[in-house]
Amino acid sequence: MLDLFIGNKNYSTWSMRPWLVLKHFDIQFKEHLIAFDDFQPDSLFKKTILTINPTGKVPALRDGELLIWDSLAICEYLAEKYPEKQLWPKDTKQRARARCMSAEMHSSFTALRSTCGMNLDADLAEVGAKLWSENSQLQQDVKRIETLWAERPSQNGFLCGDEFSIVDAFFAPVVMRFIGYGIPVSAVNQHYIHSILNLVAVQQWIAEAKAEHVFVECEEPYRTQKA
Amino acid sequence: MLDLFIGNKNYSTWSMRPWLVLKHFDIQFKEHLIAFDDFQPDSLFKKTILTINPTGKVPALRDGELLIWDSLAICEYLAEKYPEKQLWPKDTKQRARARCMSAEMHSSFTALRSTCGMNLDADLAEVGAKLWSENSQLQQDVKRIETLWAERPSQNGFLCGDEFSIVDAFFAPVVMRFIGYGIPVSAVNQHYIHSILNLVAVQQWIAEAKAEHVFVECEEPYRTQKA
Repeated sequence: MLDLFIGNKNYSTWSMRPWLVLKHFDIQFKEHLIAFDDFQPDSLFKKTILTINPTGKVPALRDGELLIWDSLAICEYLAEKYPEKQLWPKDTKQRARARCMSAEMHSSFTALRSTCGMNLDADLAEVGAKLWSENSQLQQDVKRIETLWAERPSQNGFLCGDEFSIVDAFFAPVVMRFIGYGIPVSAVNQHYIHSILNLVAVQQWIAEAKAEHVFVECEEPYRTQKA
Repeated sequence: MLDLFIGNKNYSTWSMRPWLVLKHFDIQFKEHLIAFDDFQPDSLFKKTILTINPTGKVPALRDGELLIWDSLAICEYLAEKYPEKQLWPKDTKQRARARCMSAEMHSSFTALRSTCGMNLDADLAEVGAKLWSENSQLQQDVKRIETLWAERPSQNGFLCGDEFSIVDAFFAPVVMRFIGYGIPVSAVNQHYIHSILNLVAVQQWIAEAKAEHVFVECEEPYRTQKA
């Protein structure tokens, strides 16, 4: 049995990615949510995760004695373990593009990631409008994402083909941020946002995030309490 | 024919990684060095790379009409294109570890990467001693790397097996930084540093870097001119 260790569904974008892959492709796994706190060395979060993963971070996947401690490596591992499920696009060119985009998400878009933390429980449209008008780096990140999304092979499809694949799981949290912060998205990419929102796995993640009812102060730069 | 676009060998760690993979595994490719400059929007570097790669960065690999614009995705592409060359470790567990470590290198170690830029032409031991004594984040990065290196299956081997694989290419620039800045490395990991330095491909990269004789100001926070 696979064990996936994740953080709060309301906040943890990195947890969301492999979780969506596992759910969408109907791979059996046991989920372990380690609640976020202040992340100090003596916090319950750190004490708990450090017994599992020496990096002290989520997500982490355990398959028997093997620990896989990075979200992209988890997805590659699953793609190899379940080749019949086609976790990456079948087409060589689209698979290469999917890996480029996933790796770019993994290492870049720092303005978006640092200023627009995912918060599924909150309506941050006002905050988003202010950030958008003031932060040119954020605008550049969004512009680049818009370009990548617009290059998908079919307007009604996913990023690198007709079917959902790992790359879409990597960009799903971006969809959540765009909605939460009211980031303006071009008409051509609205289709893609709807494709993501229509996925059963995405809907389940959002519902479970909203049911958490937990307010983690260090994840809330824009609110003092829940609405 | 594969075309690899890289930056200056003296400075460009991201270029070094796929270049080492291609050289070490004897994969034919044509190399295109785009000289670093001030990276301003109207600079020759930016103008040149933007005709090839919309991200405006190196490295990028072109295979016919297909562009692969991320270093990790380039390596995954090559691993798939040349399965007989075993670019990732053959063992499933070690392959998963190799991907975790490569992905961690791809997204983390920001203190090491930002304060100890690779500079093969320079002796920065004095600078390194100062950085080491003052920067606890740098010490933490190095400690984590030391742990990862020490876990290699065989002391005389590479990170995830007896043979060099993609993960070693990802950590080769770290070896260069450790040497250049005189970062203290435990005895158990000195073996690994020697294994990397003994590679013909690494020796070729270093020699070609030293032969560049180019001083790029924005890559030189610690020198005003070449020695």
